[in-house]
Amino acid sequence: MIKLRLAIDAMGGDHGPSIVIAALKKAVSQFPDVEFAVVGRQQELQQLLQSQALNDHPAISIVHAEDVVTMADKPGYALRAKPESSMRKALELLADGHAQGVVSGGNTGALMTKAYFVLKTLPGVLRPALMTALPNQRGGQSYLLDLGANPVCDSDTLFQFGVMGSVAAQQTLAISKPRVALLNMGEEEIKGSDVVRHAAQLLQSSEAVDYIGFIEGNDMFTGKADVIVCDGFVGNIALKSCEGLAELLVANVKSTIASHWAYRWFFRLFSKKLQQSWDWLKPDHYNGASLIGLRGVVIKSHGSANSEAFYSAIQQAVTEAREELPEQIKSRVESVLLEQA
Amino acid sequence: MIKLRLAIDAMGGDHGPSIVIAALKKAVSQFPDVEFAVVGRQQELQQLLQSQALNDHPAISIVHAEDVVTMADKPGYALRAKPESSMRKALELLADGHAQGVVSGGNTGALMTKAYFVLKTLPGVLRPALMTALPNQRGGQSYLLDLGANPVCDSDTLFQFGVMGSVAAQQTLAISKPRVALLNMGEEEIKGSDVVRHAAQLLQSSEAVDYIGFIEGNDMFTGKADVIVCDGFVGNIALKSCEGLAELLVANVKSTIASHWAYRWFFRLFSKKLQQSWDWLKPDHYNGASLIGLRGVVIKSHGSANSEAFYSAIQQAVTEAREELPEQIKSRVESVLLEQA
Repeated sequence: MIKLRLAIDAMGGDHGPSIVIAALKKAVSQFPDVEFAVVGRQQELQQLLQSQALNDHPAISIVHAEDVVTMADKPGYALRAKPESSMRKALELLADGHAQGVVSGGNTGALMTKAYFVLKTLPGVLRPALMTALPNQRGGQSYLLDLGANPVCDSDTLFQFGVMGSVAAQQTLAISKPRVALLNMGEEEIKGSDVVRHAAQLLQSSEAVDYIGFIEGNDMFTGKADVIVCDGFVGNIALKSCEGLAELLVANVKSTIASHWAYRWFFRLFSKKLQQSWDWLKPDHYNGASLIGLRGVVIKSHGSANSEAFYSAIQQAVTEAREELPEQIKSRVESVLLEQA
Repeated sequence: MIKLRLAIDAMGGDHGPSIVIAALKKAVSQFPDVEFAVVGRQQELQQLLQSQALNDHPAISIVHAEDVVTMADKPGYALRAKPESSMRKALELLADGHAQGVVSGGNTGALMTKAYFVLKTLPGVLRPALMTALPNQRGGQSYLLDLGANPVCDSDTLFQFGVMGSVAAQQTLAISKPRVALLNMGEEEIKGSDVVRHAAQLLQSSEAVDYIGFIEGNDMFTGKADVIVCDGFVGNIALKSCEGLAELLVANVKSTIASHWAYRWFFRLFSKKLQQSWDWLKPDHYNGASLIGLRGVVIKSHGSANSEAFYSAIQQAVTEAREELPEQIKSRVESVLLEQA
């Protein structure tokens, strides 16, 4: 196995570089064969590494970057005005072959724009897509894409998302024959828009994917499909509305617990055991959206990630880089293009 | 107050007419000033009414319909091949002025197609929309539309949904100045598709609605907006993905309870009290999607509704019919057309 190197944008995210360095502490112990280039303001990072007793760690190096892309920066502005940002420098390390993957918790729009500009898409790939793993009732995971890189998609793009998601599920979820579905407002062939129906025909007639048909929103968490494809507008709203519902339920659970002595007592007594049984649903485990279709591994960590969640994003980057996901996608897309020619 | 009459399609829904008649028993006691025309197979309905001691009830009459639209019927087929269905006959009672509202638990696609064909849209209304109430963190409700009547919408249609939803929130949620928002993949003006951005301009420049801007999926349940507008594809998938997540969580709660004697014991002891604190989230209370923009009140009850849920749908129909929602929408849409002229 070749030695991997990841570039970590330490300055993105709502909580600043401290959670990144804390995540790194776990990562260097879990992945002894991986090197980390930590990109950001040298002095600040040096202090943080020192506080975690990581300042002389052989697997960690600092790459100085003066500027930081903020959450408020518009993507176009960040691209033009901040060439010295930590995000940009991390992507350049990847583009120049000094790293095999990037992890950033920064501004999603800026990351997508910069990554697309610096790395470019793989040959034959129409558009990159943002993809994440969802927990499902079978105890496994399903990939959902696109989550917002492309608000409007044509049928060819949706078809390619199916191909790319299928390769990703094979390589990183170890599913030998991933079942690919299109998200639609009904399961019948006549449902939905022309774009979705045409994408279904393309997926149906391709050898490159195991297409199982349309699924509805309520099947997103059942494990009926391993790869769920939709445009970025739909994927973004589906995922965020689920986040919203989860917040509503958590708020309700909290006020229920507070409302009666017996609840408070019970939850104090069993909180540890209860926590365990919910761990598989823990959002921290599902942190890390992959920007796929580009010439390199790029993982977007949630802006509000804690160190545990940021570690999950690093883990995802290690897996994708080890499995050489971009190379695998490239070769599958090439074979599809030959199939269609 | 004029005496209202509702036409109830008794044959739709997965559980057949028995839950409809059970719901009716509650409705006649709660709404002494409302008459009900129960549409379906006479003999079957007569027996069910007898079993509930409702056979001689002065507020209930049976309208015989030989045919039933099944859940498997394609909308076009149901429209052409089943003119004698209970669904069609209920809608005809409304169209002919013999009823002021229809409630059906039947096939959604068939109901939308038949309602559109039999009733037509209100003057000036481009497309009808399917709308439902969501619970929110403020303890109130927000309306979400469209839920699937229109997979693809142009900006003018989205604008009208904002107007119609605003009227509905005023009349049936008693919100004097409903805050209307467009569902989008970001809050910034540049986000989303051209269609959504143009709809935002239309809403912004109209006097007819209090437009507050874009909201993201995670704000669907916060109560930030009273009316949330999107196309039917997005609305359908957002709502159903939330249903899917809720099912995943319920399955997890059940297996957690089963996993430890203390959980089983606790939940047996406090199930009644716990139930109460969750009641405001109970899906039964949110049953009943309104098909608005038509010349008459049409409420779609969930196919799997129990009698309590079907009663909620009847309640919604009574409210909309009492408030003369179609008339109110008509006059607001007319004033908007004058404003634009």
